[in-house]
Amino acid sequence: MSDSIKYVLDESRIPKVWYNLAADLPKPLPPALHPGTQKPLGPDDLAPLFPMALIMQEVSTEREIEIPEPVRDIYRQWRPSPLYRARRLEKVLDTPAKIYYKYEGVSPAGSHKPNTAVAQAFYNQQEGVKKLATETGAGQWGSALAFAGALFGIEVQVFMVRVSYDQKPYRRALMETYGARCIPSPSNETQSGRAILAKNPNHLGSLGIAISEAVEVAAQHDDTKYALGSVLNHVLLHQTVVGQEAMAQMEMAGDYPDVIVGCTGGGSNFAGIVFPFLGTQLRGGRKVRIVAIEPAACPSLTRGQYAYDFGDTAHLTPLAKMHTLGSTFTPPGFHAGGLRYHGMAPLVSHIKELGLIEARAYHQISCFEAGVQFARAEGILPAPEANHAVRGAIDEALKCKQEGKSRTILFNLCGHGHFDMQAYIDYFDGKLKDIEYDEAELAMALAGLPSVKAA
Amino acid sequence: MSDSIKYVLDESRIPKVWYNLAADLPKPLPPALHPGTQKPLGPDDLAPLFPMALIMQEVSTEREIEIPEPVRDIYRQWRPSPLYRARRLEKVLDTPAKIYYKYEGVSPAGSHKPNTAVAQAFYNQQEGVKKLATETGAGQWGSALAFAGALFGIEVQVFMVRVSYDQKPYRRALMETYGARCIPSPSNETQSGRAILAKNPNHLGSLGIAISEAVEVAAQHDDTKYALGSVLNHVLLHQTVVGQEAMAQMEMAGDYPDVIVGCTGGGSNFAGIVFPFLGTQLRGGRKVRIVAIEPAACPSLTRGQYAYDFGDTAHLTPLAKMHTLGSTFTPPGFHAGGLRYHGMAPLVSHIKELGLIEARAYHQISCFEAGVQFARAEGILPAPEANHAVRGAIDEALKCKQEGKSRTILFNLCGHGHFDMQAYIDYFDGKLKDIEYDEAELAMALAGLPSVKAA
Repeated sequence: MSDSIKYVLDESRIPKVWYNLAADLPKPLPPALHPGTQKPLGPDDLAPLFPMALIMQEVSTEREIEIPEPVRDIYRQWRPSPLYRARRLEKVLDTPAKIYYKYEGVSPAGSHKPNTAVAQAFYNQQEGVKKLATETGAGQWGSALAFAGALFGIEVQVFMVRVSYDQKPYRRALMETYGARCIPSPSNETQSGRAILAKNPNHLGSLGIAISEAVEVAAQHDDTKYALGSVLNHVLLHQTVVGQEAMAQMEMAGDYPDVIVGCTGGGSNFAGIVFPFLGTQLRGGRKVRIVAIEPAACPSLTRGQYAYDFGDTAHLTPLAKMHTLGSTFTPPGFHAGGLRYHGMAPLVSHIKELGLIEARAYHQISCFEAGVQFARAEGILPAPEANHAVRGAIDEALKCKQEGKSRTILFNLCGHGHFDMQAYIDYFDGKLKDIEYDEAELAMALAGLPSVKAA
Repeated sequence: MSDSIKYVLDESRIPKVWYNLAADLPKPLPPALHPGTQKPLGPDDLAPLFPMALIMQEVSTEREIEIPEPVRDIYRQWRPSPLYRARRLEKVLDTPAKIYYKYEGVSPAGSHKPNTAVAQAFYNQQEGVKKLATETGAGQWGSALAFAGALFGIEVQVFMVRVSYDQKPYRRALMETYGARCIPSPSNETQSGRAILAKNPNHLGSLGIAISEAVEVAAQHDDTKYALGSVLNHVLLHQTVVGQEAMAQMEMAGDYPDVIVGCTGGGSNFAGIVFPFLGTQLRGGRKVRIVAIEPAACPSLTRGQYAYDFGDTAHLTPLAKMHTLGSTFTPPGFHAGGLRYHGMAPLVSHIKELGLIEARAYHQISCFEAGVQFARAEGILPAPEANHAVRGAIDEALKCKQEGKSRTILFNLCGHGHFDMQAYIDYFDGKLKDIEYDEAELAMALAGLPSVKAA
């Protein structure tokens, strides 16, 4: 039987805990700093933005953090997500490699994002929060939080990067169907937004700007908190359900990955699949090669500097040590909006510095080529972000073919591309270009990094 | 615990046979007739259009027809599909009813259609067919066949109703990503298409016209066959995996439906969930009330005539006895393109005549209201077609509330609406109208029904 194979876990196998990589790091993560004092941040500094339960997770070094039962109840709608052996793709590639992929597009919002959106909405509801403000690029995160907000009766306000807001009315309509309010960013609703519009009324927006707007709204209203869809420790933590399930499913398959591939924007889907395997390795278990794939037009891991920087453009956030292109860097408008962020999650940056992972940057056309090849073989149409992981996995498989070696490759297919079809149309029409970022702008953004003594 | 519940079957529980309602009918189905001789059709008459294996299924009265192993292997990618108890929706409705739904949107193409597309592609490949021609309205069927064709290496040519082709570029892009060729219908590629364009170059198309074009292409090329996504006996047969799984899942839940609700266009998703339960009833098992929900703008079951009619506009197909609005009737352009067909599946029409099912017609705005209410409660955004079933199920649940009675309601959520977001945007913008069909046109179309002695 040469058809693709699905590995399904019983719902009792939904993880009962999130796995916290901080417990197994050979060297602790540099702390986040207060932007004014440059002293390590205390829980109280974050209290205007996040509920205390999430703040405690942000700084926890406990290896396992229990998943609350109401969160697991909601996870049950789509979890455990399937893991597939892509035998049809292997056959097309004529490779001796074995390719497995975890598929997170089965969630109601179509990506891995609800894993953390549901948890965040739960903790906020527990602490009496009435409203959540957030930002979204491609819209995967915004729709995930809109979904979670609907379930917990929390109002959701999404600042959507204007270029995406205009180009992706269907993603916006999904958020509105869930009951969220979606605002193009930069907007007139915040000081940060107005300041940018004053300089350029036609500004296309960026994730960094949208974060500033959402943080500002949260900071100014007592009943409102902020929610972030990636980058932060607690967000990555929530995604580890992905990797934990994948470990159990690889065991079902009687196999173990030699290589794990994930795409990286802020780092959360990558962390989700990678951290449980990496933790096993760090505790003396089997070693696995780990490859992060990022967009060549926004290459924080491969071209950024490892330094303290702001998470947003208006410099309202704390300083975090991460691979960054500079908080003023505006990535060009390529099609994987979810990967258009100037920084990389501190935890992912840290393990890159420790030499525990590799990183590669790809241009978008070759990623869409891979995505179409994948769709024709496996039937699932990946999101543009996920196409980066598909490209990385296919390249690993082709290397196996070249070397005549059979390796086991695992990747995370973090979402479907149903709301990204314009990108596929552009690809088929030959309108997709491989876009280079502006070297001068990058140099300027890097030169403008805050000077931090502790760094 | 008041959260929604998912009932998951192990993959060994994917049905091994399709269930054939013909075996249990109290009165046999009137045969299809040759349009020239008006004599019952023989297998040879259909041979230019379909592979012999499907023709034999079309006329079979065997109760169980084995599902070939390669088809089950592909079903494994998404089957068994989940069945949910919609407790979150029950709570919002404050109803004593229990609402269960089977969710077919988990398939790669996003609806129940791959259940038959994969089977049809398999049998065609077995008999050496190189190319399949078909029609599509909303695009659910076209993308399902495109997906199946990609897996079996069969070229797929889709005549897409022009109004949908123009309004739904993303659905078309999905078909093209799977490698299919998509042509707006009426087209210049066929005699039937050219004849219509000669009279009206801006004709918006209809399913009846697109069927004529696809049938013509298949009839004229030896290596090409025709594939239909609904209406025919073998198509309905393939969908019975849905109802068989639902029966097993209701058993897991320790429950049995008092009412089953499905939306009807050609009748295939309705038949899929209903026939296995109805068969049980016909063999002396438990009785269940069955309600078909159709669009008020194209109400074949509630306003059509039960008569022999053509399946297409150009009268290239055999005559089938069915509830029909007349093959020249062009339904107005409402948003559930998958329900815009002048006729109803002969099997569904037959059981309606036998009094085994009820039918109700709904206008679209109330269906979208129901769809949005469902999305906010359950997280899944239904296709406009599926919204009809959601409306029907919610109305049954509200009736329970009114009567203070707890009944068990089961409905088929046949697909997600990710490619139908423009309809939701129009709904939110207040641009959606409840459209009436033209009474005079209906009268004329019914007056033009072929005169058939055997009828």
